[in-house]
Amino acid sequence: MSKARVVSYGLGPIGRKALELAAQKECLEIVGAIDIDPELIDQDLGELARNSKLSGRKITNDAAALFAATRPDIVIHCTSSFLPVVEEQLISIASSGVNIISSTEELLWPRLQHPERADRIDGAAREAGVTVLGTGVNPGFVMDTLPAFASAVCLDVQKIVCRRVVDATSRRLPFQKKIGAGLSTTEFKQMVAAGKLGHIGLRESIALLGGALGFELDDIRQTIDPIVADSDLQTPFLKVRAGQVAGIWNRGHGSAKGTLKVEMDLRMYVGAEDPLDEAILDANPPIHVRILGGTHGDLATAAMLVNGIPGVLQARPGLLTMLDVPVPHLVR
Amino acid sequence: MSKARVVSYGLGPIGRKALELAAQKECLEIVGAIDIDPELIDQDLGELARNSKLSGRKITNDAAALFAATRPDIVIHCTSSFLPVVEEQLISIASSGVNIISSTEELLWPRLQHPERADRIDGAAREAGVTVLGTGVNPGFVMDTLPAFASAVCLDVQKIVCRRVVDATSRRLPFQKKIGAGLSTTEFKQMVAAGKLGHIGLRESIALLGGALGFELDDIRQTIDPIVADSDLQTPFLKVRAGQVAGIWNRGHGSAKGTLKVEMDLRMYVGAEDPLDEAILDANPPIHVRILGGTHGDLATAAMLVNGIPGVLQARPGLLTMLDVPVPHLVR
Repeated sequence: MSKARVVSYGLGPIGRKALELAAQKECLEIVGAIDIDPELIDQDLGELARNSKLSGRKITNDAAALFAATRPDIVIHCTSSFLPVVEEQLISIASSGVNIISSTEELLWPRLQHPERADRIDGAAREAGVTVLGTGVNPGFVMDTLPAFASAVCLDVQKIVCRRVVDATSRRLPFQKKIGAGLSTTEFKQMVAAGKLGHIGLRESIALLGGALGFELDDIRQTIDPIVADSDLQTPFLKVRAGQVAGIWNRGHGSAKGTLKVEMDLRMYVGAEDPLDEAILDANPPIHVRILGGTHGDLATAAMLVNGIPGVLQARPGLLTMLDVPVPHLVR
Repeated sequence: MSKARVVSYGLGPIGRKALELAAQKECLEIVGAIDIDPELIDQDLGELARNSKLSGRKITNDAAALFAATRPDIVIHCTSSFLPVVEEQLISIASSGVNIISSTEELLWPRLQHPERADRIDGAAREAGVTVLGTGVNPGFVMDTLPAFASAVCLDVQKIVCRRVVDATSRRLPFQKKIGAGLSTTEFKQMVAAGKLGHIGLRESIALLGGALGFELDDIRQTIDPIVADSDLQTPFLKVRAGQVAGIWNRGHGSAKGTLKVEMDLRMYVGAEDPLDEAILDANPPIHVRILGGTHGDLATAAMLVNGIPGVLQARPGLLTMLDVPVPHLVR
């Protein structure tokens, strides 16, 4: 089989990790990379990805020229969490005849918050005969696709409860900032109100589970609260004093006609002692699936973006979800 | 969407449970049932499936006539664990233009033991434009497709260890007999040697994981040993005295060039105290997924056969595996 030709689009921490990983895969060939950061443009891709195979290729901000010159099969897209920010990028890539696997969290279940934008992306993808998929680890795996898959061994499911606990102590600084570590509770609440911190995608995870299990959810909501440190904490990057915010507690609920069907409990904070992922299916037979020690968010998202490529290339055209693609697994 | 038209083919314990479940699903319509047992032929399907919706339909042994009269979309096939036994059935069903989802354990990875039979089934399916899939809970989910899916969040995987412990105490009598409960160890070994007891599919699970993760396994082997009761045990159906066989210990190994890549440990016995399913991926990041309390084999297999139907109907023609179909989940 010929190698799939890949372009990296967006070279932030996740995009860079996905690029590094993709460059190591025998079934993939990196043919270019795109970013708008002036500091990155014209940098050597081999240096950035720490892989001499890529030496000589320069990072560009001219997507159209790169696509025309290299005719990639697929783009690994990592630029923003928000669908309104990426809509034009996705339509432009798709219209160039290039498939897309994206870390955009709102793309996991794009019709929840942005049905018209989803229609436009879907239309462009179908017209060009390419597939667009949003994935990652959360959203994308632990709190949505994995419990959906677990429901396949059930005769019936009444309710799903998902819990994820992430210890942020050794995560990168932008992640620690994203969860508000080191803020006062007042600052935390202001920044949540301004949309400047938090986890994106919990409601999309709920919606995916609702769609998968036919729950017909008519009410999806979330709350975001601070988790306050009860003693001083230290990470490689910052200090959290007792009484300051250690991280975020993001809870979500999906209901149908007043009955709670999906419950989410996501805690990401400095000093979390028992990281884990789990999904409890109130079902026949009952299913309680747990990932002991949890799943490393950054590595796992980069992995899912790369391992998801064959499924996207096989899938039918359009804006799809994780429920539409073949069971993803490690690729070599 | 119009309902998928379903025929049940094989009405043993699993086939019957799958039929009952399928009859409850809004997206499915049972249009007939097939068995060769003279005691079942001409019985009323509504009575057998305990569902008045099916009343008036008779069980038949004339598959061709039933297919011609009802034009089903898919058959739920539950007749034998062994591919040589079902090959003609599958080819005949597929050649009638009917898709197949089957509990035949050797069909999980049909090319492991029966590459030529697999080619013939694949050829018939492609020619008729239908899909054939083997699935279930084990093989089909806990020791193969689930750990394969878990590998999607890994950058690399060195080795996978799967463990399954099933408490047979409250399972049906044929299951307790299948695992040798109540036999002497001598009888157990004789019956294993004669192929009359044991679990079917462990090597197929290993092969699926090898195929999914690109392990290029060149050596797949298994051992079957008795688990001996150290005290008297009682089930609703039989008694196991201390020193008699309580059940089966089926271990499997898959290696590539002398390196162990997949390790399976399956224990099914009367009196098992801590049933569970788990997969430990020696990987980056490491993943340890566990189903607490395990997964109920009979119910879960019936569920997977029914919940897998939409994926089979969407998939491309041919003899496929669980790696080729969309992520299955509960259907309504």
